[in-house]
Amino acid sequence: MPKIWAFITDFFTYETTKSVVVKSRSVGIINRVVQLLIIIYFLCWVFYHEKAYQVRDSGIESSVMTKVKGFGYHNNRVMDVADYVAPTQGAAVFCIITKLIITENQFQGFCPESESKYKCDTDEECDKYLGRIITGACVNSSKGRRCEMEGWCLAEDDKYVSKPVTVENFTIFIKNSIRFPMFNVTRGNFPSSLNATYIRSCTYDPEHNLHCPIFKVGEVLRYTGQNFSTIAQTGGEIAINIEWQCNLDESEERCEPHYSFTRLDAVFQKNGIAKGYNFRFAKYYKNENGTEFRTLHKAYAIRFDILVTGLAGKFNTVPTLINVVAAFTSVGLGTVLCDIILLNFLKGADQYKAKKFEEVSESQIQILLSREGCSQLSIQPEEKISDDSGTVSLCLDQQL
Amino acid sequence: MPKIWAFITDFFTYETTKSVVVKSRSVGIINRVVQLLIIIYFLCWVFYHEKAYQVRDSGIESSVMTKVKGFGYHNNRVMDVADYVAPTQGAAVFCIITKLIITENQFQGFCPESESKYKCDTDEECDKYLGRIITGACVNSSKGRRCEMEGWCLAEDDKYVSKPVTVENFTIFIKNSIRFPMFNVTRGNFPSSLNATYIRSCTYDPEHNLHCPIFKVGEVLRYTGQNFSTIAQTGGEIAINIEWQCNLDESEERCEPHYSFTRLDAVFQKNGIAKGYNFRFAKYYKNENGTEFRTLHKAYAIRFDILVTGLAGKFNTVPTLINVVAAFTSVGLGTVLCDIILLNFLKGADQYKAKKFEEVSESQIQILLSREGCSQLSIQPEEKISDDSGTVSLCLDQQL
Amino acid sequence: MPKIWAFITDFFTYETTKSVVVKSRSVGIINRVVQLLIIIYFLCWVFYHEKAYQVRDSGIESSVMTKVKGFGYHNNRVMDVADYVAPTQGAAVFCIITKLIITENQFQGFCPESESKYKCDTDEECDKYLGRIITGACVNSSKGRRCEMEGWCLAEDDKYVSKPVTVENFTIFIKNSIRFPMFNVTRGNFPSSLNATYIRSCTYDPEHNLHCPIFKVGEVLRYTGQNFSTIAQTGGEIAINIEWQCNLDESEERCEPHYSFTRLDAVFQKNGIAKGYNFRFAKYYKNENGTEFRTLHKAYAIRFDILVTGLAGKFNTVPTLINVVAAFTSVGLGTVLCDIILLNFLKGADQYKAKKFEEVSESQIQILLSREGCSQLSIQPEEKISDDSGTVSLCLDQQL
Repeated sequence: MPKIWAFITDFFTYETTKSVVVKSRSVGIINRVVQLLIIIYFLCWVFYHEKAYQVRDSGIESSVMTKVKGFGYHNNRVMDVADYVAPTQGAAVFCIITKLIITENQFQGFCPESESKYKCDTDEECDKYLGRIITGACVNSSKGRRCEMEGWCLAEDDKYVSKPVTVENFTIFIKNSIRFPMFNVTRGNFPSSLNATYIRSCTYDPEHNLHCPIFKVGEVLRYTGQNFSTIAQTGGEIAINIEWQCNLDESEERCEPHYSFTRLDAVFQKNGIAKGYNFRFAKYYKNENGTEFRTLHKAYAIRFDILVTGLAGKFNTVPTLINVVAAFTSVGLGTVLCDIILLNFLKGADQYKAKKFEEVSESQIQILLSREGCSQLSIQPEEKISDDSGTVSLCLDQQL
Repeated sequence: MPKIWAFITDFFTYETTKSVVVKSRSVGIINRVVQLLIIIYFLCWVFYHEKAYQVRDSGIESSVMTKVKGFGYHNNRVMDVADYVAPTQGAAVFCIITKLIITENQFQGFCPESESKYKCDTDEECDKYLGRIITGACVNSSKGRRCEMEGWCLAEDDKYVSKPVTVENFTIFIKNSIRFPMFNVTRGNFPSSLNATYIRSCTYDPEHNLHCPIFKVGEVLRYTGQNFSTIAQTGGEIAINIEWQCNLDESEERCEPHYSFTRLDAVFQKNGIAKGYNFRFAKYYKNENGTEFRTLHKAYAIRFDILVTGLAGKFNTVPTLINVVAAFTSVGLGTVLCDIILLNFLKGADQYKAKKFEEVSESQIQILLSREGCSQLSIQPEEKISDDSGTVSLCLDQQL
Repeated sequence: MPKIWAFITDFFTYETTKSVVVKSRSVGIINRVVQLLIIIYFLCWVFYHEKAYQVRDSGIESSVMTKVKGFGYHNNRVMDVADYVAPTQGAAVFCIITKLIITENQFQGFCPESESKYKCDTDEECDKYLGRIITGACVNSSKGRRCEMEGWCLAEDDKYVSKPVTVENFTIFIKNSIRFPMFNVTRGNFPSSLNATYIRSCTYDPEHNLHCPIFKVGEVLRYTGQNFSTIAQTGGEIAINIEWQCNLDESEERCEPHYSFTRLDAVFQKNGIAKGYNFRFAKYYKNENGTEFRTLHKAYAIRFDILVTGLAGKFNTVPTLINVVAAFTSVGLGTVLCDIILLNFLKGADQYKAKKFEEVSESQIQILLSREGCSQLSIQPEEKISDDSGTVSLCLDQQL
């Protein structure tokens, strides 16, 4: 037989472990029960509940369009969308203004501050504010003596309290289209089965109108547990969460949004600062002389953040394979427990041990090696004696 | 030998499975072929195609800056960027206004509604609208009798149709810088090899100018399959997707963006509502008396959402190790198949079975135990007989 | 014994691998050292450092509220928040205007262009610009002859340089509330232990005021390594990164933000274009005749992008299990190395091989099969001879 042929013959062999089959009912039952438990665990928890056969992604691509509707009264004026929504473009983050502190007709110039912390008797008291827009002079104002400031005059006086706009009946229409880029699945936040008439007339409610994309401001506030009259006074930040939890192994139609509502500034409530939400903006005018003046608005608003999150899962070979291999291996690991029982606690444990373990010690190998030498010697005595006398003596020594 | 020494000797032993090597060519070939298939599967699919040696992340940090250029005509007036882009700051979401319904010089007051659904003959007919801004009176208007409203007068009349601005030749410059926080890799959407002259003069096209960050509005609409004249009339929402699929084991230079264009409101087309995109905004003025008035704009616009998504992968020891272990274990699982063939379908299956499995039954162990007892007995008869006669009888019983 | 009973007995058996225990100190030590190294690797790197027992998610839900404070001078006018912040609502992306090029009182009409590239001597030279808003006429202007344009007149002249607003002392207050939807953990960017007084007076600094949510513009620019006077002239884009790296197996209190500051347009610096950041916006006015005019502002601004990223990890059974199984299997793979040593390099390797591998060749099986046939023959000679004489001869043939 040539060498290459021997190599090929050697290569195409099949190696399998030699096993000891223990026909003991007790260990047998324990073995099968352990295996069953491991299989149940994998099937029920790992594969069914945790969906370990799926690859998952939370990187969602989302676009939100909003539209607010409603009319409100503020200072005996009617406000419409163009007046109370900011920014006006219908983005994912928008504010509904509930209260305005309006400082009309401000011109650039010099005037006394309005806040009481700028109270003064002499110019010296105003020096500490220098470097800002305080001029350092103490002047008379309608409220008593105040430090003089430079800038838009007269200064804002936010002590004036106006009644907030009743925005409770305003509605917010939300159009949200998302995509899971990893799986290239695109979805909209209301099913295509809803018709235009229904959508125009419905309002979201978690029980009967789960798919309606129109939200009543009052209801949203109620879901977050907020008191409307408080939030309308101080402003606030409300999150409308749209969660997409999609199992893409099922029909795409079942990939639907789930709405939830939280007050975003709730985490900061303990700090006792930054309660509510407000911002300042100005409308600019020019008089006949071409001089610019402005009306400053301090707007208390409810800010709505439409926050979209998603988690999609879809069957993929790699996690499936890894978990199947882990499952098989774990079933195999069940033998570890049974081995412990078999080899330690069972009657006849030593006999089982003897059956399972074949011991080879170095000394045995030594003996085998020497015997082999001797037997080789006895088989081919003529050849060996002449050139390998050392081996003979060694062999004889060891056999003694 | 002291006990501790025995323990150490026992500890430093090496345990390896005893194997049966089957020198059968048929099983050998099946074994190697199965192993080969498993190895090929792992190398080609799991490691090469699925890149299972990488840890991946889709959490991308992105900043988008946009700049629109172009001039358009609307109602015989020239509109520039400051007129038709909203918001003006060049954010990731911006609108290009294509059509404006302008209601000039609105003052707060009372006036008839303009929409035909508010048609009336008597005050009673208007009562159903009460509670909104409808006063409940039915008054004359230029279009016949209408319910009276309170608010900004005259009411908007959106029946008037103006010709949309031809925005097709406008260009959008997009600057997008991203970061994969997990891998701390920062990239920009155009390579640093592009020089200023090229960037100023190029326009994106997927074949010849893949890296050019300037997009022509008309082309973008064409890529989404939209008809320009329709979308200019009703408005619409267009997504410019920037996808970053980066293999960070390669050169960072090859981490490049891929642009795609979709119409965002396409998912809602079946619903037949909310076609197009529009929003209302107002410009506020003051007349000589200081009375505020406004011009209301209903703007039909194309809204562009620059949506950035990313998926980066980089070599990591943990997934690599898990998959290598899974690969090794799977190769081992190949024996399961071969065992089935060997022990069931091959000629001499029973002989192979006998070779592979060594059976130990409880009864054998019983016999062994009793024999051991007997041999112990025979070796040390004097000691045992006196105090352990029970064992003797048991031993004799069993040997019978 | 009925068949079903035999099956059950067969089923409740326990199969364990037969092992060879090699009592060789050298291999034993190698074996244990290899196992130890694998265990250390898994414990220290995979489990402790890489936290492979956790499931991780980078899909974060974030809401950002900002508020800028400060007063600045521009062209001898005092600017406040309503003047220099855009958009005014306090979103995650906002601009602080540092320089304004103001073109006052633009009316719709015809006028010469201002840029020197529109220089002309004859009308013909202006023809190349036709199709835009250029009329094609060459007219006189204060700067010499220029092509005539249609639109808002007079044309903007951005050569005029005004001194930028010193925004260095402005402060940015950031309120960031986040949620990890996969784990339903909500956090705010400053601990609830901070009280209102501290927050109102502190400024962030990475050493002493790590939790203060108020950032000084000058400091932020310094952290990014930017020169204030340059960035104020040309504008720029600054990212304030808020990174949430949370180990949710620990106390939630330790899930804290980490701030970092980068210049976003840094990646584009090599391209030499789009240096800085600016945008145009207009304020609209009406004169006594009701004619609209506007003041165009080209605003150079520092744009701040509050970019929030997060990576949370929490114990989960699936990755834990997979990694534990991988660890166990890897420890098992240590035998591969020891086997190689034992069977190839150790003295008595062939003896070990003979102990580990039991060879079964097809010819052996043939002999066994034939013997079995013969012994069956000898046991039941009367039955077999008559109908199975072929077997007898085969058996005899093989035994020869």
